[in-house]
Amino acid sequence: MRTQIAIIGAGPAGLLLGHMLHLAGIAAVIVEQRSPDYVLGRIRAGVIEAGTREILNAAGLGARMEAEGLVHDGIEIAFDGTRQRFDFHNLVGRAVMVYGQTEVTSDLMAARRAAGATTIYDAADVTPHDFDGAKPSITYRRDGITHRLDCDFIAGCDGYHGPSRHAVPTAAITQYERVYPFGWLGVLVDRPPVAPELIYARHSRGFALCSMRSATRSRYYVQCAADEDVGAWSDDRFWDELRRRIGTEAADTLQTGPSIEKSVAPLRSFVVEPLRFGRLFLAGDAAHIVPPTGAKGLNLAVSDVAILAAGLRDYYHDRSSAGIDAYSAQALRRIWQAERFSWWMTNMLHQFPDMTAFERRLQRAEFDLLRDSRAAAQAMAAMYTG
Amino acid sequence: MRTQIAIIGAGPAGLLLGHMLHLAGIAAVIVEQRSPDYVLGRIRAGVIEAGTREILNAAGLGARMEAEGLVHDGIEIAFDGTRQRFDFHNLVGRAVMVYGQTEVTSDLMAARRAAGATTIYDAADVTPHDFDGAKPSITYRRDGITHRLDCDFIAGCDGYHGPSRHAVPTAAITQYERVYPFGWLGVLVDRPPVAPELIYARHSRGFALCSMRSATRSRYYVQCAADEDVGAWSDDRFWDELRRRIGTEAADTLQTGPSIEKSVAPLRSFVVEPLRFGRLFLAGDAAHIVPPTGAKGLNLAVSDVAILAAGLRDYYHDRSSAGIDAYSAQALRRIWQAERFSWWMTNMLHQFPDMTAFERRLQRAEFDLLRDSRAAAQAMAAMYTG
Repeated sequence: MRTQIAIIGAGPAGLLLGHMLHLAGIAAVIVEQRSPDYVLGRIRAGVIEAGTREILNAAGLGARMEAEGLVHDGIEIAFDGTRQRFDFHNLVGRAVMVYGQTEVTSDLMAARRAAGATTIYDAADVTPHDFDGAKPSITYRRDGITHRLDCDFIAGCDGYHGPSRHAVPTAAITQYERVYPFGWLGVLVDRPPVAPELIYARHSRGFALCSMRSATRSRYYVQCAADEDVGAWSDDRFWDELRRRIGTEAADTLQTGPSIEKSVAPLRSFVVEPLRFGRLFLAGDAAHIVPPTGAKGLNLAVSDVAILAAGLRDYYHDRSSAGIDAYSAQALRRIWQAERFSWWMTNMLHQFPDMTAFERRLQRAEFDLLRDSRAAAQAMAAMYTG
Repeated sequence: MRTQIAIIGAGPAGLLLGHMLHLAGIAAVIVEQRSPDYVLGRIRAGVIEAGTREILNAAGLGARMEAEGLVHDGIEIAFDGTRQRFDFHNLVGRAVMVYGQTEVTSDLMAARRAAGATTIYDAADVTPHDFDGAKPSITYRRDGITHRLDCDFIAGCDGYHGPSRHAVPTAAITQYERVYPFGWLGVLVDRPPVAPELIYARHSRGFALCSMRSATRSRYYVQCAADEDVGAWSDDRFWDELRRRIGTEAADTLQTGPSIEKSVAPLRSFVVEPLRFGRLFLAGDAAHIVPPTGAKGLNLAVSDVAILAAGLRDYYHDRSSAGIDAYSAQALRRIWQAERFSWWMTNMLHQFPDMTAFERRLQRAEFDLLRDSRAAAQAMAAMYTG
């Protein structure tokens, strides 16, 4: 089999790239190790930046998001129980859209079906080959048979654990990493959210986040140990702990219910440089991970893909490699800003095991600055809303 | 002997407090362990915030500063050799004044002499007493005789090593501290500064700062080990190291000369809470230390003293203790903002021995943000100019 672009991974990054290439008349085949149900079952963030929303709408993917998504003009930060709202609309004239990543993925799958484009699910041992030469390919096994897909370029959209990055020789790649000494215990529940906007809580017992997927489905998190045993957390224990961290007003109005999902996620900052190795490009989680505090993961994947798709359009339509040559540097500028922002928000709001009293007071000073300095709040709002 | 306010320490904090009390018709005696020459010989920072300049001018202390000081509308940051100017005037409509702390001290000494107020120099074993009761006092030895000064209040303006803070019972005071794993090696030279404004340099070899005291006297620093042996640094070695860190353009125009002072300063963040213990108040370095990166030390001392003097005025003139009761909390709000800012600038610009590659790239991302985000630059400029 032959195509122009072989995309590894059918998560949001790979599906969006496939869709954008389809719109540009460029052929792409997506090869995914998992099943569609598995991909859709992964619970991820749900905050869409203003720029991401524009990209999705421009690609004709925004109809359901615009109808069902919740426009948020701000967030709240509850610092030791005191809630402070940050009005993005007032600060930077932008808003975010709350719309689950699962919904984005579902919309992308529908678009790909409508386009009649090929997605190969349940592909085992996906492996990129010969991307340092002119004739790259990927191989994979399915139903006991090894298949080969020849292509012009390979797009590694296969996440942190995927084969694309691992196929790059170690000497050619630089990795930057910070593993945080805690995790997030998340609960999904079919109850209306405690407040119309997200509440990020910094508390001496640890971070908490009141988030949502829709007007009737909420997503809550509490900071926990990195190796926390989710089995030790009954729903009641989770709700009790959450209430302690979010301030009395929010605690009193919180609507609890049986959890429909409960899991522990680690927190990690990770970047590789560069993002291009001959005819292999990395995009999304394959190239970078942010802690979820800044809600940047999906948004970064979308901006990577938008830059890469534009570069490939120029390559095929205008015979210009300027766009694909600039992809790595251009995407990395934005990636490092998002890494800095996610690291900063994580530092401000979490309890670290080795934290000094001085560092705790710096967290308070950081919050006071955001509250009292319009410029500081604007810088935060600009990064948050993208 | 009796006075209303016994001030321990004749550095800028104690002298300014004495002057402000004098203007308000409140009697104060200053007791200082060292000689006037020793106090004047201490080389300290020389950046006066806009607010500090206003306070000094309002107290009638600004004539020489306004005539001889250099108004700076911005600073430069040289990141790995690339210089970027930050225009404070454009960003926040404010400027700073470069005027050495030694000059401020000299002006304050002259004002105190003109007022005919009492300053007792060379006082040994200065000790505050009974500040938890209604009748505080201080004792000190001079010429072999122990003297006692009764007062209404004691102002501890005696610096980090002074006796005031050490007289407070440990249980009554909370200390916050961060000792940085490096120092600054500073050189004073009678040569015009390399550039009209300060250059803060971040370089893989370490931080450097091109500063000045006047149009003909410059002050330069390079990051060094905390326990650096100043004797190992010839002038030539210092100039060579400085040139390596500040970018080729600055290195090529640097005017070097024989050093007239050369010393190593440690970097420390330090705050105590509260700032009042009965009838004892702490102000300036007695209560807090900042690393010199943000040039906040003198400015914080001045703002402490302005708040305290206003409180004491209200106490004596209006029989209101509201001002002195609020002193600690009010001063600490500003102190923690300056601590956060100084810590942040220190982190962005220095090489830390245990730094990861990820953290080095975050420094670059922080600089890029300042360069590209007007809001971020405004938040920095607002803090820098005070």
